[in-house]
Amino acid sequence: MSHDFKPVSGREMPRFAGIKTFFRLPQVDHLGDYDVGLIGVPFDGGASYRPGQRFGPTRVREVSSLGRVYNWGRMQDFTERVRVADVGDVPVVPIDLAQTYQRIEKHFGDALQLGRRLIAVGGDHSITLPILRAHRKKWGAPLRLIHFDAHLDTYPAAWGCEYHHGSFARHAIEEGLVDAKHSVQIGIRGPLTGAQDLDFVKRHGLRVCTMDEIRSQSLAQFVASLPDFGSAPTYISYDVDCLDPAFAPGTGTPVPGGLTTFETQTILRGLKVGNLVGGDVVEVSPAYDVAEITQLAAMDAMFELIGLMPATRKA
Amino acid sequence: MSHDFKPVSGREMPRFAGIKTFFRLPQVDHLGDYDVGLIGVPFDGGASYRPGQRFGPTRVREVSSLGRVYNWGRMQDFTERVRVADVGDVPVVPIDLAQTYQRIEKHFGDALQLGRRLIAVGGDHSITLPILRAHRKKWGAPLRLIHFDAHLDTYPAAWGCEYHHGSFARHAIEEGLVDAKHSVQIGIRGPLTGAQDLDFVKRHGLRVCTMDEIRSQSLAQFVASLPDFGSAPTYISYDVDCLDPAFAPGTGTPVPGGLTTFETQTILRGLKVGNLVGGDVVEVSPAYDVAEITQLAAMDAMFELIGLMPATRKA
Amino acid sequence: MSHDFKPVSGREMPRFAGIKTFFRLPQVDHLGDYDVGLIGVPFDGGASYRPGQRFGPTRVREVSSLGRVYNWGRMQDFTERVRVADVGDVPVVPIDLAQTYQRIEKHFGDALQLGRRLIAVGGDHSITLPILRAHRKKWGAPLRLIHFDAHLDTYPAAWGCEYHHGSFARHAIEEGLVDAKHSVQIGIRGPLTGAQDLDFVKRHGLRVCTMDEIRSQSLAQFVASLPDFGSAPTYISYDVDCLDPAFAPGTGTPVPGGLTTFETQTILRGLKVGNLVGGDVVEVSPAYDVAEITQLAAMDAMFELIGLMPATRKA
Amino acid sequence: MSHDFKPVSGREMPRFAGIKTFFRLPQVDHLGDYDVGLIGVPFDGGASYRPGQRFGPTRVREVSSLGRVYNWGRMQDFTERVRVADVGDVPVVPIDLAQTYQRIEKHFGDALQLGRRLIAVGGDHSITLPILRAHRKKWGAPLRLIHFDAHLDTYPAAWGCEYHHGSFARHAIEEGLVDAKHSVQIGIRGPLTGAQDLDFVKRHGLRVCTMDEIRSQSLAQFVASLPDFGSAPTYISYDVDCLDPAFAPGTGTPVPGGLTTFETQTILRGLKVGNLVGGDVVEVSPAYDVAEITQLAAMDAMFELIGLMPATRKA
Amino acid sequence: MSHDFKPVSGREMPRFAGIKTFFRLPQVDHLGDYDVGLIGVPFDGGASYRPGQRFGPTRVREVSSLGRVYNWGRMQDFTERVRVADVGDVPVVPIDLAQTYQRIEKHFGDALQLGRRLIAVGGDHSITLPILRAHRKKWGAPLRLIHFDAHLDTYPAAWGCEYHHGSFARHAIEEGLVDAKHSVQIGIRGPLTGAQDLDFVKRHGLRVCTMDEIRSQSLAQFVASLPDFGSAPTYISYDVDCLDPAFAPGTGTPVPGGLTTFETQTILRGLKVGNLVGGDVVEVSPAYDVAEITQLAAMDAMFELIGLMPATRKA
Amino acid sequence: MSHDFKPVSGREMPRFAGIKTFFRLPQVDHLGDYDVGLIGVPFDGGASYRPGQRFGPTRVREVSSLGRVYNWGRMQDFTERVRVADVGDVPVVPIDLAQTYQRIEKHFGDALQLGRRLIAVGGDHSITLPILRAHRKKWGAPLRLIHFDAHLDTYPAAWGCEYHHGSFARHAIEEGLVDAKHSVQIGIRGPLTGAQDLDFVKRHGLRVCTMDEIRSQSLAQFVASLPDFGSAPTYISYDVDCLDPAFAPGTGTPVPGGLTTFETQTILRGLKVGNLVGGDVVEVSPAYDVAEITQLAAMDAMFELIGLMPATRKA
Repeated sequence: MSHDFKPVSGREMPRFAGIKTFFRLPQVDHLGDYDVGLIGVPFDGGASYRPGQRFGPTRVREVSSLGRVYNWGRMQDFTERVRVADVGDVPVVPIDLAQTYQRIEKHFGDALQLGRRLIAVGGDHSITLPILRAHRKKWGAPLRLIHFDAHLDTYPAAWGCEYHHGSFARHAIEEGLVDAKHSVQIGIRGPLTGAQDLDFVKRHGLRVCTMDEIRSQSLAQFVASLPDFGSAPTYISYDVDCLDPAFAPGTGTPVPGGLTTFETQTILRGLKVGNLVGGDVVEVSPAYDVAEITQLAAMDAMFELIGLMPATRKA
Repeated sequence: MSHDFKPVSGREMPRFAGIKTFFRLPQVDHLGDYDVGLIGVPFDGGASYRPGQRFGPTRVREVSSLGRVYNWGRMQDFTERVRVADVGDVPVVPIDLAQTYQRIEKHFGDALQLGRRLIAVGGDHSITLPILRAHRKKWGAPLRLIHFDAHLDTYPAAWGCEYHHGSFARHAIEEGLVDAKHSVQIGIRGPLTGAQDLDFVKRHGLRVCTMDEIRSQSLAQFVASLPDFGSAPTYISYDVDCLDPAFAPGTGTPVPGGLTTFETQTILRGLKVGNLVGGDVVEVSPAYDVAEITQLAAMDAMFELIGLMPATRKA
Repeated sequence: MSHDFKPVSGREMPRFAGIKTFFRLPQVDHLGDYDVGLIGVPFDGGASYRPGQRFGPTRVREVSSLGRVYNWGRMQDFTERVRVADVGDVPVVPIDLAQTYQRIEKHFGDALQLGRRLIAVGGDHSITLPILRAHRKKWGAPLRLIHFDAHLDTYPAAWGCEYHHGSFARHAIEEGLVDAKHSVQIGIRGPLTGAQDLDFVKRHGLRVCTMDEIRSQSLAQFVASLPDFGSAPTYISYDVDCLDPAFAPGTGTPVPGGLTTFETQTILRGLKVGNLVGGDVVEVSPAYDVAEITQLAAMDAMFELIGLMPATRKA
Repeated sequence: MSHDFKPVSGREMPRFAGIKTFFRLPQVDHLGDYDVGLIGVPFDGGASYRPGQRFGPTRVREVSSLGRVYNWGRMQDFTERVRVADVGDVPVVPIDLAQTYQRIEKHFGDALQLGRRLIAVGGDHSITLPILRAHRKKWGAPLRLIHFDAHLDTYPAAWGCEYHHGSFARHAIEEGLVDAKHSVQIGIRGPLTGAQDLDFVKRHGLRVCTMDEIRSQSLAQFVASLPDFGSAPTYISYDVDCLDPAFAPGTGTPVPGGLTTFETQTILRGLKVGNLVGGDVVEVSPAYDVAEITQLAAMDAMFELIGLMPATRKA
Repeated sequence: MSHDFKPVSGREMPRFAGIKTFFRLPQVDHLGDYDVGLIGVPFDGGASYRPGQRFGPTRVREVSSLGRVYNWGRMQDFTERVRVADVGDVPVVPIDLAQTYQRIEKHFGDALQLGRRLIAVGGDHSITLPILRAHRKKWGAPLRLIHFDAHLDTYPAAWGCEYHHGSFARHAIEEGLVDAKHSVQIGIRGPLTGAQDLDFVKRHGLRVCTMDEIRSQSLAQFVASLPDFGSAPTYISYDVDCLDPAFAPGTGTPVPGGLTTFETQTILRGLKVGNLVGGDVVEVSPAYDVAEITQLAAMDAMFELIGLMPATRKA
Repeated sequence: MSHDFKPVSGREMPRFAGIKTFFRLPQVDHLGDYDVGLIGVPFDGGASYRPGQRFGPTRVREVSSLGRVYNWGRMQDFTERVRVADVGDVPVVPIDLAQTYQRIEKHFGDALQLGRRLIAVGGDHSITLPILRAHRKKWGAPLRLIHFDAHLDTYPAAWGCEYHHGSFARHAIEEGLVDAKHSVQIGIRGPLTGAQDLDFVKRHGLRVCTMDEIRSQSLAQFVASLPDFGSAPTYISYDVDCLDPAFAPGTGTPVPGGLTTFETQTILRGLKVGNLVGGDVVEVSPAYDVAEITQLAAMDAMFELIGLMPATRKA
């Protein structure tokens, strides 16, 4: 392909101009030829409070026009390492979670079977479960999960519904999609519904890094305390509500006392992940965003996830 | 009850103060003793574009603090005609339309069987169908429907789903809940998906008052052209997108070229409806509202619906 | 003065540039030498619902940079008719209405005694009463009042307080500041607290032009129905909530079903007022404005008031 | 091409999903094979007050997802009449008007020479001049111009610059691009800088339909008063500030007292234009828009312009 | 009472649904039977810059639907420790500070005499003075005050008015309501009107913890430096402008360079207060809030204050 | 002059009242008699993404009403050290960068020749180059530059244009206006267009303090690491995008992971600059600001720059 997976140059076509794709990268079918696909999953039918995450992909696409390709922290130009493309959105069913789950799982499964790696933009956090199901099939073993969030997402059914944006982590562990003992949650904070909210993670040995733990030491110390995920298939799910509402107002269930974008950048750059097989950035609700700062934070997290992907091109 | 269904006075307790109920009226259980219940149905799981109608009831409650009881056009104080109360919200299931439909139908059915009349605040327009089902059971015959909207809402299934906010009118007619030949739609306008969009209403003899028709004559002439609904059980469904986006920006699927609030006030005051059995105001999406103007318009429509309710108190 | 009361040209200094004065006119002390003074009265201590009118003068100043001097409807350049200046703001006491009333009355009284005419920008509507008191002293007789508003402003005391933004018209009539029988209210609409709300205006013979009356005929017919105010000292008070919330969202107590800016422009241009002695534009609450449209409407009303001022310069 | 110039169906892929193109139509190169190209011209370097029109194309693309293809007023499905495509944006130079003018003229000229017709989305109104220059070359004669605007746009140079968003109409006439005597301006209103602002249009015989004229009769009468543009090459330039700020807050230089969207829809549908060769919708400034209503109005105007294009497909 | 002071469950009734009370707790009269009452004081008549704090209670009620009962930092479920209720709002007089002060003092005094403890939501900071007066009467001795703020609030009269939102701390000390030597201010920062602004606190021995002091050490060190307030009656007044404007934009007089929500959470959790008799959260001005983040921060501070209340129920 | 360069007192005239000047200081002609002039440069014709910086001076003027004169960190009242005035705006040409550059250079040059020092408020960052040219002429040698920014601003031409808001630092060094080896950049962070983006600063020996460097140590340590700028003419350019988007959303090209206002306050107070000859605060884009927090941050930076100016009055 002639574009060679390079973004449209901002010095030729101004960044505010043109049809919007993620990072101004070329559009490729999700079953096409690329290494890392950026994909929208515009579903908010699992949200319990503020909805609107369905507009996340569109608005992150728009603001990602401000994106660049060179990661200073890593001293890497991602276009020299992997072929990244915008592979469009999953055709979700906004009013039917069950159907949407099937579509997401199939859409991702088809691409994964072809050896593609996908970074998804939600959508609410309920989309992560069918993505993990697709990964479980592809990799034949539970994944290691690095989960940025304010919430544990191990909650029980609500209003008689098993699947919602606060229960994906529980299902992922219960279904054997995720290896809880080699996984970690980052940014978790209260308040909780009760002490019993912690039972699940304790029982499954999931490491929960609370804000209190993270801020009780230097950031470098915290990063150093994280495990080496080695070459095991690893998945990163980044819920923008891990950030403080000041940094990510445009989200469904904000919780004061959260991380800064500098902290999550530093953590993401410091992770020792040898085999990132996929990731997502979820819970961007643009109707509540201000001056696009949440969308920018989401775009920035996608950029760091791209940087964590294993290289397929020669340096 | 000592309050005698009077609102809290704004000259004693400022209108910005106090726990918010519709029109500052007393809270009564939906199965309690009252004539007309104002009820929230905070469900937006049927929305096809912008969601957020789940916050409609809360925000309309807040702004209805600005409401008063005397309808100048009718020269009536509603508290002297009917006992109106805030009967709370239906406990919807935000992520399951089918369960929500059952809950709405039961919640309304229980109150209707007790002889209550309810004015609902949505929520998206999908909530009207189960309300009409409850009415059909209560009244034993199809209702006459006065339907304010930009859209026909007679659309077919979308994404394999029969029930969504654009198909309620079709289902209501197909299920025999509504007497199409004695019903009317007001405010309808284009664009359409195709000429076939009009087939359903033509086939069922539903009168469609388009913007072009309404504005081709004086407002008084238009009002005079509407039928007398007599003593037949009649239901009014007021979708705020009947209004122009300038008057109701805070809605899910706005369409330019719509009605003004003055026009819908005048039409509502001019209706000849002898037996209004219920009504709703739907599609308020507060996250898109500006300066609460859509919420004000919704509150105002509720006020006119109260004025149309048959009197139960002696003048 | 060398500036000769001309605004800074937008073709020399861009309209977004420079220190902001009303219409980019020169700053003159309120006791200085000018014909018509534009003056801010940034007081919102009389507001019963939304406050913030204290920021009205600042924001109207800013947006009035878009103003021009030639009134097409009148075929007049106001700078050729009167010497208009920005005479600053009254030093109000934000937390004390009584003191503020004294300061306003004195500030206006001093200028009126010098023969100046003032157009005030509020501030909430409570500011009009002390202005009218100053006028009463100056002119020695009740003024004729043209009052644009959604509300009658003849309300009784609230929370034990006689003076608030909803009672100015009552006090003005009761104190003999205004000649009710030769005055008129325009844009009034419901709902009301009760039928008794109308007792005051009926008793005093104040003509109330409701929205229903205005819209029941052509606009030209309505304008023609208004009296000729002749050479009697006349005052115009323009509450931006006479406009529909779609046209003036940034106000304290919006009421659906109001006027358009085109309608108030046309009415203002059609008024037969031979001796406009003063006027005000009140109830702009910028924190609730959107895209400055209410501020623009306020600026536009000021512009029409200037056009109604008697000429002092030779054509 | 297999898509046959049909939009992506909203009943298959939800309207909030997918990479955004105008009306969800296929992307085609501006020199490709299509009949009517929708094109963005994201330049705001000619704006004198509020900028931000550079984001117009992106945001109109997004909201045009709500668009449909069947024009009820015309009883026409545009996809059955013409092959419409999104042909991307012109690569403007945001900080150099002269270069941008050259690029626009060439970009449009190249497509026009191939027989394509283009509907542009601005961008501020300065973009219309180079578009008209390209048309002049193509058609070999001055065009008839139908110009919706609050402003005459016949203003002289500002700050020493001939070309800006308020002077395009003057240059178009002076350069012989437009046949003033067969052209018309609609929506014009004051205030003006001075009486001399009208000299230019009077001298050139350009018909100026002011708001006062339009509103002094019924809308149908006004529409009937417009000339038949016959088969002469005709161009429509639609500045969204022809609309009242209530209907189009998101624009650069709003003027109270303007048109409603219903009025411009009706006028556009009533125009007798046999040979529309191009058109534009300009001055959408999304940073000032609220709830996307200006963007919706712009999308709606584009839809009407498409409906005015001569059919190339058999009915 | 059957509800046993438990909030409505979010897993049964969605958090966006229902009539809004603080933390979805039951409504109880302020003179009723409960331990800790959450109470609104919607008064902003003491504000010197941005008003709108009158809407604080309503909007904090709404967003407190997101609240939970289990304080992770304290490992406590507050419903197991104290009976907390929403006791409504004080009937303030929006345009009369003196009357409002009397009403607040009486309203609080009556409840305090019954042994209740109250956590107030303002309102501007002027409301704290009459609350402290009520406490002084109840406890018979000056209280210890922990005062979070950007400002000293020891300012002199302004515009001839002794009482305003910047002078409460001065009056509280001068009237002997507060024991300055055992009190502390946290979050204070400049700029000041002059060096003399510090005279009052120096003279009275009030400890002022500036941002510079707080940030010159680790947060744990700062918390450890705070005194043990022992069993002395202690009051906490939390002005949201102690937070940086990034964390609390929706406030009256924001000052850059402030605290984060994580910092105030940590300080509040680390306080050694044996006898918290009351507290308030003030200066939330919702019209300036963005995405409800200030309201969330206020709700969160209320939650921490509840956690500091002495237990009345057995664990 | 009788005002003696004191601001209007907020205890006499409320801070929201009056015609707005920077810090409520007197207006003086830029060639008049003062020490430090605060000046607006409302030009955004060099912006590559979001424009709107042209409204920066107006909105910073407005919010600077909240400013005070006593710098607690420095224990200095600036009115006792220097005579500060608002000297108005430069008459820029919004659509012509070259002309604007000439006007800025002349405007500043004329004042500098008279011995005045100026603190500018932009405007986008392109305005700094002509200011530095004027300084170069005045001082006869390259200045030392302290440059707060997210971006290096050493970028090459874009769209064929040498001069834009991302290239000022490169030109300033290439033209010999700035002494790169004694200058420093603070707050710089990625992503970059490529590794080559760093070539320029490396080649010229410009010290780049990245966020990673700043946050890898205590803030005090970082401040101590900065050089002593001695008595060499030094210029500070403060681009508000040095701040994190949470602290400065209202800017043209925001980058996550930035500084806090506390950090820049502390750095500015800790700088050892003996001869600050000028400074600017740029890239405030009010249309994107929320609750004025970016404008407040800009005002605060101006305040610190004033504090760094050499004293001309005796203490």
